[in-house]
Amino acid sequence: MKLNKESLETLEEIADIIKNARTICISTHINPDGDAIGSSLGLAIVLDRMGKRVRIFNKDPIPRLYDFLAGKEFIKPADDDIYVDAHVILDCSEASRVGKRVIDRVHPRITINIDHHETSDGHGDINLILPEAAATSEIVFILLKRMGVAVPAEAAEALLTGIIMDTWSFQQTNTTSQVLRVAADLVDLGADPSKISMALFESHTESQLRLLARVLDTLEIRADGALAMVTVTERSLKETGTGAEDIEGFVNFPRSISGIKAAALIRETGGNRYKISLRSKNSLDVASIAAKFGGGGHKMAAGCEMKGTLEEVKEKIVKEVEESARRCQN
Amino acid sequence: MKLNKESLETLEEIADIIKNARTICISTHINPDGDAIGSSLGLAIVLDRMGKRVRIFNKDPIPRLYDFLAGKEFIKPADDDIYVDAHVILDCSEASRVGKRVIDRVHPRITINIDHHETSDGHGDINLILPEAAATSEIVFILLKRMGVAVPAEAAEALLTGIIMDTWSFQQTNTTSQVLRVAADLVDLGADPSKISMALFESHTESQLRLLARVLDTLEIRADGALAMVTVTERSLKETGTGAEDIEGFVNFPRSISGIKAAALIRETGGNRYKISLRSKNSLDVASIAAKFGGGGHKMAAGCEMKGTLEEVKEKIVKEVEESARRCQN
Repeated sequence: MKLNKESLETLEEIADIIKNARTICISTHINPDGDAIGSSLGLAIVLDRMGKRVRIFNKDPIPRLYDFLAGKEFIKPADDDIYVDAHVILDCSEASRVGKRVIDRVHPRITINIDHHETSDGHGDINLILPEAAATSEIVFILLKRMGVAVPAEAAEALLTGIIMDTWSFQQTNTTSQVLRVAADLVDLGADPSKISMALFESHTESQLRLLARVLDTLEIRADGALAMVTVTERSLKETGTGAEDIEGFVNFPRSISGIKAAALIRETGGNRYKISLRSKNSLDVASIAAKFGGGGHKMAAGCEMKGTLEEVKEKIVKEVEESARRCQN
Repeated sequence: MKLNKESLETLEEIADIIKNARTICISTHINPDGDAIGSSLGLAIVLDRMGKRVRIFNKDPIPRLYDFLAGKEFIKPADDDIYVDAHVILDCSEASRVGKRVIDRVHPRITINIDHHETSDGHGDINLILPEAAATSEIVFILLKRMGVAVPAEAAEALLTGIIMDTWSFQQTNTTSQVLRVAADLVDLGADPSKISMALFESHTESQLRLLARVLDTLEIRADGALAMVTVTERSLKETGTGAEDIEGFVNFPRSISGIKAAALIRETGGNRYKISLRSKNSLDVASIAAKFGGGGHKMAAGCEMKGTLEEVKEKIVKEVEESARRCQN
């Protein structure tokens, strides 16, 4: 990545602060995803090897899916206030995404905000925001490389995991030549892309595939062909012995249908309540649809919660997608 | 990739022959896959731009999946004998994989064999075999780079398609730092990995997902947990309005189950006949299983045909996987 002069100066400044800090706390966003987790663990492992006292303190635990990664010993809950030289906040576009409990507990001399979200609001004392980066893990690697510190294989593996998840295995529009070269560097440092991919994408359970069969069976194409929609009922979870965690990635199946503009996965959560995951294809903005129902997210991936009967919920989504698709064409 | 002295000399020799050739025929293997097609189209586009008279002549047509690639105008059937300066054979470990009709029709001054299969038997006059390459498309790019010729965006797209298919989106064990850097170079030349991935992996039809639901519903875990097996019946194809082409990639679903050692997809082809696709995980060798039934392939991916009732066929596969799994443990 060609960094501009300002970003380069910020990078140098952060490198200096980290080199001089003795105690560092790393935090990332609520409901952490692969990039949040990978960038945190990767950075923690390297800082520890540098002799820093490092801890990761987050509001939410990390999902079971990431159990194969090293460095989890640095994740520590906090009952008391934490005083550190630097608080490094990764992959959080807003301070509120870190969670109040974390912000309240950590008392740093300086807060460093490293992120790749275009909408990042600069909530740190120093902010390194590089929207052209595919993942925060990519920025962390660029920082470590600039610092000239050794990156052990376990740290490289964590960072490559972040990149693989945020580019969805180099398939999303954020896959640049730069992130492919960073991935190559991480492989040279000992990260194994096939091991990571097997852990992330080939660790299904038998019950999970049985659930997938049930979910695909609910496929509906609506909104004049613009929407592919599937439903996960409480009953299908119960009958296959699965839970909400098992549907990770399922929304990519309706999304993979040719010619549609949006995909929705509706999950029944009980008492006439539903969680909706929305995905976009071909430029339709699903964040604005989610926002109409009090939810949020990105243009390509968003979510919301709704109440009503399943039919009512479906009709509301269909109506919004129809309108968005119409606007999209004009 | 660090080429040894011999490979480097071969590379130079091939570069010279191609530079001096006026007419070139490119061929690849029967039932061509993404790498066979990508490497052929990519090379043809570049040679055409160099002012060569170039044609691609294969036994089999290319699957619909690759319709998005440029260069298909170079694919020409041949009713007469073809006399060319050079016949470049790509991705074929044996001459028989090119097909007799092609070998009989093409009369070259010299045959150049470019391949990445370890088992390649050196059937060309000149043989560039690089087993450390993830894909033949990768070798073609290294050759073109060495030749110092311009690689237009459409050629880069074809070559990246070959790499993406042979590494299964950078997820297989053949994903080296070298192939990631080649991919980065191809992106810089104008290939768009998200466009390619969408064409390859997100072009499902509604019927295809309905078929997938049916197929996943047949999932069986057998051989003491070592084998995950699914079945595609003629009836399920008929009832979902799909064909054999629609099951491309389906074997990856049973393969994605944690802890298994092999996956099988059994497809009924009529008259008590079945085509079996086998995939390995965790070091079990499925090529040797396929060989027992007169089939072949690689250690990780193989296939065969069998006769009998569906139950008989299943039991035979289960028995072989049981034995291989037992040997694997010892």
